[in-house]
Amino acid sequence: MNPGDRVRVDRADRAYEGVLLPSSTDEQLVVKLEGGYNVGVDRDDADVSVLAEDVYEIDGDSDADDAEDAADEDASDEVEFDDDLPTISLISTGGTIASTVDYRTGAVTAQFDAEDVLRAVPDLAGRANYRGRVVANILSENMEPPIWQDLAQAVQEEIENGADGVVVMHGTDTMQYSASALSFMLETPVPIVFTGSQRSADRPSSDNVMNAVSAVEAAKSDCAEVLVCMHGSESDDICALHRGTRVRKNHTSRRDAFETIGAEPLGTVDYDSETVSFCRDYQQRGEVALELSAALESDVELLKFTPGMDPAFLDVVEGADGLVIEGTGLGHVHTDLIPRIEELVADGTTVVMTSQCLEGRVCDRVYDTGRDLLDAGVIEAGDTLPGTAKVKLMWALANEESVTETMQTSIAGELQERSVPWE
Amino acid sequence: MNPGDRVRVDRADRAYEGVLLPSSTDEQLVVKLEGGYNVGVDRDDADVSVLAEDVYEIDGDSDADDAEDAADEDASDEVEFDDDLPTISLISTGGTIASTVDYRTGAVTAQFDAEDVLRAVPDLAGRANYRGRVVANILSENMEPPIWQDLAQAVQEEIENGADGVVVMHGTDTMQYSASALSFMLETPVPIVFTGSQRSADRPSSDNVMNAVSAVEAAKSDCAEVLVCMHGSESDDICALHRGTRVRKNHTSRRDAFETIGAEPLGTVDYDSETVSFCRDYQQRGEVALELSAALESDVELLKFTPGMDPAFLDVVEGADGLVIEGTGLGHVHTDLIPRIEELVADGTTVVMTSQCLEGRVCDRVYDTGRDLLDAGVIEAGDTLPGTAKVKLMWALANEESVTETMQTSIAGELQERSVPWE
Repeated sequence: MNPGDRVRVDRADRAYEGVLLPSSTDEQLVVKLEGGYNVGVDRDDADVSVLAEDVYEIDGDSDADDAEDAADEDASDEVEFDDDLPTISLISTGGTIASTVDYRTGAVTAQFDAEDVLRAVPDLAGRANYRGRVVANILSENMEPPIWQDLAQAVQEEIENGADGVVVMHGTDTMQYSASALSFMLETPVPIVFTGSQRSADRPSSDNVMNAVSAVEAAKSDCAEVLVCMHGSESDDICALHRGTRVRKNHTSRRDAFETIGAEPLGTVDYDSETVSFCRDYQQRGEVALELSAALESDVELLKFTPGMDPAFLDVVEGADGLVIEGTGLGHVHTDLIPRIEELVADGTTVVMTSQCLEGRVCDRVYDTGRDLLDAGVIEAGDTLPGTAKVKLMWALANEESVTETMQTSIAGELQERSVPWE
Repeated sequence: MNPGDRVRVDRADRAYEGVLLPSSTDEQLVVKLEGGYNVGVDRDDADVSVLAEDVYEIDGDSDADDAEDAADEDASDEVEFDDDLPTISLISTGGTIASTVDYRTGAVTAQFDAEDVLRAVPDLAGRANYRGRVVANILSENMEPPIWQDLAQAVQEEIENGADGVVVMHGTDTMQYSASALSFMLETPVPIVFTGSQRSADRPSSDNVMNAVSAVEAAKSDCAEVLVCMHGSESDDICALHRGTRVRKNHTSRRDAFETIGAEPLGTVDYDSETVSFCRDYQQRGEVALELSAALESDVELLKFTPGMDPAFLDVVEGADGLVIEGTGLGHVHTDLIPRIEELVADGTTVVMTSQCLEGRVCDRVYDTGRDLLDAGVIEAGDTLPGTAKVKLMWALANEESVTETMQTSIAGELQERSVPWE
């Protein structure tokens, strides 16, 4: 068997059918499934049968005829640099959207280049000069804080090396957490636009082309912030641009699953006219100098309070650097937990309160429970989203002198300044 | 000092000013604050000064003039039973809405009656005959599963004793959890309507009167389900009626904070015309016989997964009866957690997957992580909300033979039958 062959791989009680891709390790077979996903299968105990040889062009060495060839020819093997176009760096971390790009080496740390990009999404041609870079190749539920740091550093390097904008291809599951992380870690003079795909490329309803094209257009815009660019409606008419710190995946499967919480999205990309518009002020291109503060305190947890919760969950964070509580209503937990929280604070754990309501501000001055929490030393995070508050607390503990003040100050749009909890 | 006096209570570094209410215990002073809330203060070390004597009518024994008198006179001390009107039981558990009712005994287990109700909300007059009952007097963040059981039993008794509908006054923080609990515990031939208040009675924007009146109208309707009745818009025009299992408090402070997730609300109460309307099928009055299944397995936890989560949180649930995971996207966690989850399942813990997206169904057959979770024995809860899934799992473990089948079947509208995760 050789890369490019159509194979069937049987291992344990699972079978995978698809095109064999090159692998960087001897331990893994990488198979591109019909659905467009790449899957890694341990070679051990795997039965492989070749269904058809050489059905897929890998690294330009195959002479097989394939639908991809048309796109290939459009792009040509040598994409010329166009002085009139901006340079956009595409950084891949994995996920559904990245599965449409074939890494010619198959290695997790591989580079990919303009040809690969244009083969995957021909509609990107003529919009920019492209550079490609792979930071990770994971499903985003496996995203971890150290990869946020790698990603932030890769983005910094791309901008230092002249990128006029950066597009980060990311799985949708945890995109909001990664976008938050980069929002805090990077001061950026150019747009950094996360995008992903809720439906893989083989589906008629796939959103990958429109999202990728819109993300590139946003990365060429004047908005030098960390944005998330995903479908803004159920149609293929508009992508929404969300601030990385205020966005949330609010639906498991819809293409317009991502929403800005507590405000309208910061902007939109009209797909037909290719117009990028913003409805509020934003940080403009070149307004700040590039600066990376990628340090994170990793020992920070998020805990959602629900009625009947075992207080032993608080024991897990004993000695931790930080704890974000997703409380009820204006920011409450059962009164019985407050002495334990007070002990945590006394022992040096920074405890931050957010609300599982998601919309609206916590305000612990209204009811007794809230006042007791404030007395215990809990910091209110305003209307910062719980997940964003966790990421921010990790960052604040590692980078800022006054964590309390930082958690109550907007660093990257995560805390909206409507200070009145109700009218 | 006597009940009815205006007092100032100083204890520790807090001061409370308001009207002293009767207390059922010697250990606590109960003070009705200006804001309308009742607060309990330990008598120990409390300094009390009487600011004015006898300013407030308690139990009809005071001759003080007070705004409440007008309402009192409207209601008269003896409210006559009207054969032409239905009988509605008002059950109080505490919270902002209940703080408008003065318990004449001040005891947590006190009864209150039609006069108290009509003194608190004169607009309720002429709509029904009322019975009053106090199950608890707590802020709802202190709600616990045993009180759900007391509440369900109280509702059952009220219905057995002839109530044509039940209104439960409840704090808004955890109303959705209690409404879910009663949805599973009770088969009901009459409406059971939860209501609460986001703004206390002393505020110009208070929602307590309109919510209480609308809840009574809903309790008189034909819909024999557990409903939540709260403001449906920012105006005082309409209340929404939400199924108890699909409702969520989605804003910390707005009056229309409660929303049905994944559908329109089941119905509305138009405040001007006092019309109750439903937009979908519902269980009609008398369709099922009254039945209470109040048993709960208390050792069930909810855990929200976020990137970088300490796997030690899973150790807390070792040996537990059940665990609901609030996963990412279609229902995922970091791959590294899966072996630990498999061990939990093998040890007898029922593990159920929901999504922190809140909208949409979990579907673990799409990606490898999901299939591995299913192989580990995790049960998918469809589009059941995470909090509802926790309550349901507590109930299912105590009442149903096949928990897996129960978690994948709609018992009380918690699981919507759109089985296709995407079109």
